[in-house]
Amino acid sequence: MEPSGDDRAVRQNWPVLANPSTGRVEAFSDALFAIAMTLLVLDLKVPPSNADLPQALGERGPGMAAFIVSFVAISGYWLQHHRLFRMLTRSDGWLLLLNLVFLLTITFLPYPTAVLADRLVAGQQVNLAVAFYGVGQLLPALTMCALFQYCRAARLIAPAIHHDLLRRVTWLSWVSAGLHAVSIGVAPAAPIVSLIYYAVAPIYWAIDGARARHEAPGP
Amino acid sequence: MEPSGDDRAVRQNWPVLANPSTGRVEAFSDALFAIAMTLLVLDLKVPPSNADLPQALGERGPGMAAFIVSFVAISGYWLQHHRLFRMLTRSDGWLLLLNLVFLLTITFLPYPTAVLADRLVAGQQVNLAVAFYGVGQLLPALTMCALFQYCRAARLIAPAIHHDLLRRVTWLSWVSAGLHAVSIGVAPAAPIVSLIYYAVAPIYWAIDGARARHEAPGP
Amino acid sequence: MEPSGDDRAVRQNWPVLANPSTGRVEAFSDALFAIAMTLLVLDLKVPPSNADLPQALGERGPGMAAFIVSFVAISGYWLQHHRLFRMLTRSDGWLLLLNLVFLLTITFLPYPTAVLADRLVAGQQVNLAVAFYGVGQLLPALTMCALFQYCRAARLIAPAIHHDLLRRVTWLSWVSAGLHAVSIGVAPAAPIVSLIYYAVAPIYWAIDGARARHEAPGP
Amino acid sequence: MEPSGDDRAVRQNWPVLANPSTGRVEAFSDALFAIAMTLLVLDLKVPPSNADLPQALGERGPGMAAFIVSFVAISGYWLQHHRLFRMLTRSDGWLLLLNLVFLLTITFLPYPTAVLADRLVAGQQVNLAVAFYGVGQLLPALTMCALFQYCRAARLIAPAIHHDLLRRVTWLSWVSAGLHAVSIGVAPAAPIVSLIYYAVAPIYWAIDGARARHEAPGP
Repeated sequence: MEPSGDDRAVRQNWPVLANPSTGRVEAFSDALFAIAMTLLVLDLKVPPSNADLPQALGERGPGMAAFIVSFVAISGYWLQHHRLFRMLTRSDGWLLLLNLVFLLTITFLPYPTAVLADRLVAGQQVNLAVAFYGVGQLLPALTMCALFQYCRAARLIAPAIHHDLLRRVTWLSWVSAGLHAVSIGVAPAAPIVSLIYYAVAPIYWAIDGARARHEAPGP
Repeated sequence: MEPSGDDRAVRQNWPVLANPSTGRVEAFSDALFAIAMTLLVLDLKVPPSNADLPQALGERGPGMAAFIVSFVAISGYWLQHHRLFRMLTRSDGWLLLLNLVFLLTITFLPYPTAVLADRLVAGQQVNLAVAFYGVGQLLPALTMCALFQYCRAARLIAPAIHHDLLRRVTWLSWVSAGLHAVSIGVAPAAPIVSLIYYAVAPIYWAIDGARARHEAPGP
Repeated sequence: MEPSGDDRAVRQNWPVLANPSTGRVEAFSDALFAIAMTLLVLDLKVPPSNADLPQALGERGPGMAAFIVSFVAISGYWLQHHRLFRMLTRSDGWLLLLNLVFLLTITFLPYPTAVLADRLVAGQQVNLAVAFYGVGQLLPALTMCALFQYCRAARLIAPAIHHDLLRRVTWLSWVSAGLHAVSIGVAPAAPIVSLIYYAVAPIYWAIDGARARHEAPGP
Repeated sequence: MEPSGDDRAVRQNWPVLANPSTGRVEAFSDALFAIAMTLLVLDLKVPPSNADLPQALGERGPGMAAFIVSFVAISGYWLQHHRLFRMLTRSDGWLLLLNLVFLLTITFLPYPTAVLADRLVAGQQVNLAVAFYGVGQLLPALTMCALFQYCRAARLIAPAIHHDLLRRVTWLSWVSAGLHAVSIGVAPAAPIVSLIYYAVAPIYWAIDGARARHEAPGP
């Protein structure tokens, strides 16, 4: 790019071009979260018209449970994503990229959920389906860790945010990813343990998050 | 968290982190409402290519009616949600959680709608399908009651909002939930009564709401 | 509602509660438009794995054309909706209701599109499918007329908007609805005429709209 | 339109009516991008309940790869769209039209993706499916070129944006479209080459974009 009279203008405008507002990235991510959460219900199959309804719905109970668990899991990621983006003062190109990878993993989650729901209802190779579902859960957990690490390393986080808070949040994201990895290893032998973990963990994080917000120190 | 020199900064920033703006929660909820309303149309099955079209569409009439009723019902919840969030001055962690539970119940509604549409067309166990649909309608109604109660208890509502208005709105939400519960009990014996209730109630609320807004006292 | 000391506060706050911002209604409507437009692609069926691909895709050509026509039609309604809401200074309860009815008709459009696409590919009762599709197009056209009429009657439109402009826009919306009604009557006898109308009309309106905007009188 | 006393008001208000804010167009486009990206996952078919899960998932591997590639491709278009709209100071009717055509091509992309995924899994006429997928990718690439060209010609771009930057971005969009066209020609003979191009190109652009943003000249 040869120098020119307008060069100053480019330099002045570049940051505007270069650093997409966190607001638009958030709004885009929110739409994607909302759609992924709503698509989960498409996995629920309507029973055949001539099946006994209470029995057929009862058999589909595990499928509905899988729907609820994934809904709660994506909600949990939405809350984490929300918390992270509120800490940022700016974004950059790598954050955009990492965020898109994160959204890819969120968008993928309905698929392992559908596989798990199908196998829970059919009772076939449930342990392997649980492990596959665990991989689906591990991917966003790992990408969330990468997001936190990158935002800290690239100093995108508002300087006023306390580093203890940041350290705790980042550490928790790694703990969560580690537990997901363990749950995959456990699934082939004891799928019920992993399933309980998937159901209970987001509730624990949600209540913990809600309480932390509630007990925020006063001014 | 040990005390430190940056501690004041955390305390100052914490509320920002802790209390997500009601605006973003609203936008996220709106996207989810819009998607749930649009997914309802996926329940409408295209008649087989070789079926007589007018007859096949006529047979699918009840399915289309179920689509419209659920669309109107979700619209009604959107209006209530909209009204509630306009009253709030702030949000907190528990509100976020309750709101996600509410959105879960909204996201679920297309499923009982699909089951109902299928059974209305097939004419099999319609009364049980109506009862199941009633449960699908009761869940958001109850969660909406919880939302109103919590927002009042946690003093999230703007102090300028008149307590008579709040009391009336909260009371109406309980009346609505109660009628839904009754409709479930009535469905096995007289499904047509419950169906009429599901079709008429949101129209009543909508017109009541529209008129109330229209007749708002002048300044 | 008995009078009280807080009564003035209610009166002051009521308009805020009563008149939802046009901004949020627009954002909600936009999400619904976007989803309805995207769902159209779900009507396109993947050819069987063992079919000859060029031939199978060729046979599905009419289905793709139906997808494009409906996409363009919904785009046209989005542009009209967009134009209307930019003219408004405020909204009220009845506008919200009418807008929801309008969105219901938009959400429904993918269904007649899917029926039309299926019959165009199968070559069965195409004329009736075109008439049904015409009904699907007439419904939003009529509701759009009602929206324009109501906004004018309820004086929701910014006073600075010229009444000639309003009269022209309202009149055009009635012309469009009338032509859609005619196209339904023509379809059973000459479906190709109606199909050409559906394909050409939105292009005409779009170019007309784009040119009108381009040739806006200077200051 | 006969002259009148209110004429000045029209002239003053016309630009407001005529030039939709780029903000609303962006928000609408974002919703559509988010939905198109999420719908891709619906192409992934759940294996039959009685199939061996690891083997069935392995066979579906190419389908998952197609999902990821299309997700990344749409992400890339979102980034380009985002960059373009940040450069604009205003919009006009033709931009709206072109943008809707662009969104149509984005909405269509899940269909060739589904066809490609199906043929990759089935191993039937893969080369033709790759060519069809290439057409699906070429359409948004070409429309993006048209968008850049039109925005420059109609002087919608902020004057402070350096013309070298604009020339480079426009030129790159044509290179991308050209490579897509080549990939279609190559597909029937060597589909693997085109597939590698589809997988690698968006990664290249993304990293290039992220780095460019990162290395933006300081003030």
